[in-house]
This record gives sequence, structure tokens and C-alpha cells, in this order.
Amino acid sequence: MINKLCIFGVGLIGGSLALALKKVGYCKTIIGCSRDEAHLQRAVELGVIDSYTLDQKEAVQGADVVLLAVPIRAIGGILDNIVDVLDENTIITDAGSAKGSVINAVKEVFNGILPANFVAGHPIAGREKSSVEAAIPDLYIDHKVVLTPTEETSEAAIKVVQDMWQATGAIVEMLPVKQHDDVLAATSHLPHVLAYTFVNSLSKSDYGEAVFDYAAGGFESFSRTASSDAVMWRDICLENKAAILDALEAYQEDLSKIKEAIIDSDVEEIESLFIHAKTTRDRIIKKS
Amino acid sequence: MINKLCIFGVGLIGGSLALALKKVGYCKTIIGCSRDEAHLQRAVELGVIDSYTLDQKEAVQGADVVLLAVPIRAIGGILDNIVDVLDENTIITDAGSAKGSVINAVKEVFNGILPANFVAGHPIAGREKSSVEAAIPDLYIDHKVVLTPTEETSEAAIKVVQDMWQATGAIVEMLPVKQHDDVLAATSHLPHVLAYTFVNSLSKSDYGEAVFDYAAGGFESFSRTASSDAVMWRDICLENKAAILDALEAYQEDLSKIKEAIIDSDVEEIESLFIHAKTTRDRIIKKS
Repeated sequence: MINKLCIFGVGLIGGSLALALKKVGYCKTIIGCSRDEAHLQRAVELGVIDSYTLDQKEAVQGADVVLLAVPIRAIGGILDNIVDVLDENTIITDAGSAKGSVINAVKEVFNGILPANFVAGHPIAGREKSSVEAAIPDLYIDHKVVLTPTEETSEAAIKVVQDMWQATGAIVEMLPVKQHDDVLAATSHLPHVLAYTFVNSLSKSDYGEAVFDYAAGGFESFSRTASSDAVMWRDICLENKAAILDALEAYQEDLSKIKEAIIDSDVEEIESLFIHAKTTRDRIIKKS
Repeated sequence: MINKLCIFGVGLIGGSLALALKKVGYCKTIIGCSRDEAHLQRAVELGVIDSYTLDQKEAVQGADVVLLAVPIRAIGGILDNIVDVLDENTIITDAGSAKGSVINAVKEVFNGILPANFVAGHPIAGREKSSVEAAIPDLYIDHKVVLTPTEETSEAAIKVVQDMWQATGAIVEMLPVKQHDDVLAATSHLPHVLAYTFVNSLSKSDYGEAVFDYAAGGFESFSRTASSDAVMWRDICLENKAAILDALEAYQEDLSKIKEAIIDSDVEEIESLFIHAKTTRDRIIKKS
């Protein structure tokens, strides 16, 4: 149980956590904080949060847990502003897609030392829509939430954050920071970059926007991630740069190989590549 | 109305046409033909076709319309085999994703001249599953079917094929052959190649198949086309090679540009590219 939860950034991720915890009665009170008052008012109207404030320092007063569900690059600024008023018992966690850079940002605020009550986290769930209106209580059910605690992180703080996410129906797992960032770069960040690029590439077609008139189901699903929030994904590209570039380069190499096979009309090679991909994906989807 | 329809390849595409036409009573009888008797028996059991034969010459006897719903590279062989017994009034159409190469294959069988009663066609609909079990009567409702008649094609033949597809609820449109092949290369063939490559690239991760354990919704939709039939898509790559390579090269250039922007941590450029893609896709999906 949490007495007071404070959520910075009451959008899809923060809002869905709030709704999920309210549904099971896990929180006594939830306060929201952001820079957009109309947005916070809407969140109260929708029953997502109980109250709000625009004052970051006020928001964290008496909070047991503070969730930073804002674009990664905003995390440092918020912490910088609240660090002086933070209670030493308050547990801080975040929901960013790239953990290495979040941890560095937190360290910078705390004079190079990661506080024991900071638990880096990443709920692996999402929809293309990113506003509080898109928030749903079931978003995390059976979805993974990865925590990437370090040597500095206290076991007690890990348990609080773990229990909170488990209360939403999520499956909580621990990963080393680097593994999280590498794996997410490959499975999530890369396909976002590829899908954004795909839509842009098509939009420059000689046939103009008419090219999209003949887009079938394959287009719809393949390009879905290109409807994701642009600023959030810009941040992720900047904050998980090295791992994303590694994944992107590996992809470019593989793309050059299939291109060569098509140029050479190499029937066996094309078929073998496609069968390998299909077999792999079918097995994975069946497992999940 | 069609008296007798003959379908070569009673899979998702041919089977769904049969079910759709039966539903509205547009066909008196539908005969199926392929090399797989168990498969054809199953199609009869499922009520998709009325009868079947393994004999290609027998299949087309007395048919008003023959649909070749087989992998593109099989079309020439079938026509070669039935050309001697084809009634001059029988209208032939196909469902291949690349029209230029189908037309060339047909021409080759007919001594370099495209017959007036051949209407090249492409229903832009599909699912990842490709068997007759996946066939549904509603597959074509509100989906585009593109016909690419040439100067040689008779107006009467076009009308028969157009009416047949309209009876399924499809929207029939005419496109020049090259435009069809260019546009489909960009919107459909390219994302299949990209998705197959994506799954293969991930499967070589240093973290092994565990990498897929953290695949979220973005992975599922982005990689969906990689579960498509490998042989069918191998054929499409071979048969629409030039247009696919053009689209692929344009994509590679755009991918190199976004990669440079990430390397340079070029905040404005990354954001501008992502916003352009998101705005474009959101507009297109809204329209469709």
C-alpha cells in the first residue's frame, strides 16, 4: 500500500499506473504535477488523479513514492528542482525507455552518487496515443516492467517499486542497466526509427501522397510505431544513442545482404532469409 | 453473374473470393485446382469450393472466368499447360502482387501477344495466414482491387472481372502497370523485406533469443509482415525486383540520414523527421 503517490507527467504511462492502482485500492491519494494546468484538470475530471499542483516542490511533500513519467530529458531538471525538499524516505522511480542516461542524470543531481532510494524502472507497455485520455487501468496487465537497480539501490526501495507495479498486474523483472538498454534498443527503439523513416521515405514518392492510397494492412501495422510521440522518441534516440546506433548498424548490414540477394535474384538465399524470419517470429509470438 | 468460376490455388486469396461470391450468390459453381489433393478436399469440406480436380486442363473446361491465385512464378506454367484447351470466351485474371512480370509471363505463353481476355489484377488485402482455413467472405469488403489492363485488354473482359470483384464488396480501381508495381513496391513489398530483415537482425543479438522476451507492442505490429508466406514473398521480390530495389535504396538513404542525425545528436533534425512521419501517418490513417 502507498499512502501518497506523486506522478510527474500524467500521460498514458503515469495515468495508466494511477488508474490501475486506484482500481485495486493500492493508493490513498495520488497527486499529479506537470506544466500544463488544463491537462492536469482533465486528469482530475477523468478520475485519474485526486489532485494536482504546478509547483514541483509542493507536489513531493509527504509523498511515499514519486514517479517521473516525463520525457527522459526532463528528469534531471525536475530532480534538480525538488532535491532540496525531498524527504529522505521518499522513494523515486521513473518510466524512461533508456536507463543508462536516466541514471547518469540522477547522479548528476546528487553530486555523482546514485541515491539508495532511486529505483530506475521501465514499464514495457504503450500505445500510439500518449495523452491522459488514452490512459487505461489494464495497460500493464501481463506486461513486463523492468527495474534496473544498481549496487547503490536499497533492497527496501526496490521492494516498494516492485510491489507497486505488481499491484497493476505487471510482471516485474530485474535487468542490468546495459542489458536493458541494448535489448530495448533492438526490440523497441530500432523499430521506431525504422518506421518513422519508412513513412518519410514513402512520403517523398514520385507519385506523391497517392502512394498511400494503396497501402494495405501490412502498411498499417508496419508503420504503427511512426504515430508515436515524436518528442518522446527524439529523446530516446538521444539518450540511448550508442545502443541504438549499434542495433541500427547491424540492421543496415542485414539490409545490404538481402538487397544483394535481390540484385542477384538469389532464390535460395532470399527464401532462406524469409523462412528464418518467419519461423523465428512465429515461435516468439506463440510463446508470448 | 458467373456460371462457372475456376480457381487455381485455393488459399487465402482464392478461397476468400470464392466465399465472398457464394455469400451473394454470384456464382453457379466454383471448381478448384491445385497440386495438393488433401488441401482441395479440405476446401470442399469448408464449403469454399463446390468441386475440385488435379487436372488443370479439365479444370478450365467451360469456365467463364479463371482466377490464377497462385504464387506469381507459377502462373506461366499453368497457362502453358491449359493454353490449348482454353475456350476463346474464357476470361483469365490473376491476383499477383507484381503486374509487370505477370503480364510478361502471360505474353510469353501467347507468343508475345497479350490476349484480349486476360485482365491482370491485384486484390490489396491479406492476412499473415495464407491457407484456405484463413479464407473469410469479408476479406475484400472496402479493400481496393487494382486492375492493370493494357491496350490489348478488351473492355468486356475488364467489365466481367471488375463486376466480379465489386460483388465481394471491394473497390475496384485501374492503374497503369508501372505505377501499380512502383506503388506496391513502396507500400507493401518494401515493408515485408524490412520486417523479415528486422526479425533476422534481432535473432543474431548477443543476448540470444532472450532479446525477444522484452519485445513490446511495437515489436508485434512492426514485425507482423515477417510472418507472411516466405515463398510468396520470395517470388514477389524476384518478380518486382527493379521497383523494390528503387524503394529499398531510397529507404537506405533516408536511414543513413537519420543515423547521421543520431550520431550528431541533432535534436532539431531528429524531431523534425519524427514529427513529419507522425503527421503524415496520422493524416493517412484518418483518411483510410
